[in-house]
Amino acid sequence: MSVIPNDQPVRTVSYQQLTDLLRRIFLAHGTSPEVADVLAENCASAQRDGSHSHGIFRMPGYISSLNSGWVDRKAVPLIEDVGAAFVRVDAGNGFAQPALAAASSLLIDKVRSAGIAVLAIRNSHHFAALWPDVEPFAEQGLVALSMVNSMTCVVPHGARQPLFGTNPIAFAAPRAGGEPVVFDLATSAIAHGDVQIAAREGRLLPAGMGVDREGRPTEDPRTILDGGALLPFGGHKGSALSMMVELLAAGLTGGNFSFEFDWSKHPGARTPWTGQLLIVIDPDKGSGQHFALRSEELVRQLHGAGQERLPGDRRYSERARSMAHGIDIAEADLERLQGLAGG
Amino acid sequence: MSVIPNDQPVRTVSYQQLTDLLRRIFLAHGTSPEVADVLAENCASAQRDGSHSHGIFRMPGYISSLNSGWVDRKAVPLIEDVGAAFVRVDAGNGFAQPALAAASSLLIDKVRSAGIAVLAIRNSHHFAALWPDVEPFAEQGLVALSMVNSMTCVVPHGARQPLFGTNPIAFAAPRAGGEPVVFDLATSAIAHGDVQIAAREGRLLPAGMGVDREGRPTEDPRTILDGGALLPFGGHKGSALSMMVELLAAGLTGGNFSFEFDWSKHPGARTPWTGQLLIVIDPDKGSGQHFALRSEELVRQLHGAGQERLPGDRRYSERARSMAHGIDIAEADLERLQGLAGG
Repeated sequence: MSVIPNDQPVRTVSYQQLTDLLRRIFLAHGTSPEVADVLAENCASAQRDGSHSHGIFRMPGYISSLNSGWVDRKAVPLIEDVGAAFVRVDAGNGFAQPALAAASSLLIDKVRSAGIAVLAIRNSHHFAALWPDVEPFAEQGLVALSMVNSMTCVVPHGARQPLFGTNPIAFAAPRAGGEPVVFDLATSAIAHGDVQIAAREGRLLPAGMGVDREGRPTEDPRTILDGGALLPFGGHKGSALSMMVELLAAGLTGGNFSFEFDWSKHPGARTPWTGQLLIVIDPDKGSGQHFALRSEELVRQLHGAGQERLPGDRRYSERARSMAHGIDIAEADLERLQGLAGG
Repeated sequence: MSVIPNDQPVRTVSYQQLTDLLRRIFLAHGTSPEVADVLAENCASAQRDGSHSHGIFRMPGYISSLNSGWVDRKAVPLIEDVGAAFVRVDAGNGFAQPALAAASSLLIDKVRSAGIAVLAIRNSHHFAALWPDVEPFAEQGLVALSMVNSMTCVVPHGARQPLFGTNPIAFAAPRAGGEPVVFDLATSAIAHGDVQIAAREGRLLPAGMGVDREGRPTEDPRTILDGGALLPFGGHKGSALSMMVELLAAGLTGGNFSFEFDWSKHPGARTPWTGQLLIVIDPDKGSGQHFALRSEELVRQLHGAGQERLPGDRRYSERARSMAHGIDIAEADLERLQGLAGG
């Protein structure tokens, strides 16, 4: 699943080498070591797992935002313990992932004790895939659900103008016989990153993904990016889910709705300044049964019904390949990254 | 939004009269008073709110299941307090709604104290709309999310055979300036009840809703009901959400997956014997802000973007009309109901 055109020279790097390189880039652009650690691993993981729209493709956006002064590069998350099952974090206008990392152990303690807990992150920027935020919980035997709102680019069903973000929902659950079941789906018909990639590659999109600036259907990704907007997936149902993401990731956390932040005074700002919600459950408290055996049974039945590829499977196979053979990166991209790291 | 053909004589009953009539029907078919109270109000509410596929249309199915011995008509839910934020209920092969009613005050106590709590109902039958289960929490200022799995009738994306139920997700959130925002969406492309109604009325369905017994697309609701199956809404995304519902409503609660129960020894059984999950959050713990004011702001912006009808709006307007003018019911239907109640 390489997106590198055949005629480009390619270099192969290890996951650790890529992580180190990205870490140096974040540090060279003024982040604290804590922020650099978390974001480098997050971005390298996406590249490793074949999520190209959220891998190194995102680095120019990160750097642009960091340079614009839009985001606090050294933000220290403020964690508040507000109930037996409720943690909230003011990310201090920094990134959401370091806030999650900082609150994670308190959150897990609460889940183990209370059975479920919620983490409400506000005043945060999220510019990455959402599955890396939930998968680690499933690796510890927990079930996790997360939502993050983003920036106005999706027209609610029945509306004339965009209001919602791409507002992804991610879910992870452990299973006994393999890697966790994990999905990460934009509630838009297509992820914004995939529109950008299609535009860069000069490809048209399938019908039903977006509209132009007048609200007319278009298949041209550049027209969508040039003042147009996306549509929700699945009509009124996807639109309702996107509304729920606004209410939970922003309304409930105290973060900005996707339409509320104004980055016009920070040219180059790219990272949506919103909020994020995580709900984590200890599934073995629910019944006398071992949840991972039950989810394994569902997977077995899904295979039996003919569903060969489960959510997450493609990432795991890309990951295995990357860990065994290294990650292929176009030489030009690698040189650009090395330049950004200061040589 | 009446579904009564123009040429049929109609009678108008009050919501209270309809509730009382349905209650007498449940009692006449052997349920305990507690079960009759809860189910009668639930079913009358759906009729009142114009949810015709979940109103009195469901009564023959309820009675068929009650008569078949498939469901325990006098089940007493067993409530277990398993954590500061976790309640589980063994519904005892009875209906899910009385189990929810019995556990509701403990659940709300936990939410108020811990900030979030989960209710895991297993060994339960759910044959109704899902919004009545979440709306009351929003009326108390809480946010509620619920999922229930049902019976094998949906082909997972990429699979050849049905496995999932219609697996609805319902959500409710309070708002300052009006009734709660509430949605209830089947993760199938169409609700099973709507297929049944279309079959009864001899209407074709839109394309993309279902397949015949060979897995070929069909628009004929009778072909779908006769060994065919439904498709998930929104392709692989709706399918992933439906899988999540199986994992949370059944896997986590200890209930049956949609494909696990065998009602072949109970001819006439209609009610899926599965599980249900509810997650309830105190949204004001999430930030310094009053959540209902924030959700009101989102509603204001949605209206501004041109979305005239929010999720739940149609139910509220039908409800207002029903409460002011009564509920119109075809005379033949009303006579049938009166017959079922014992005259």
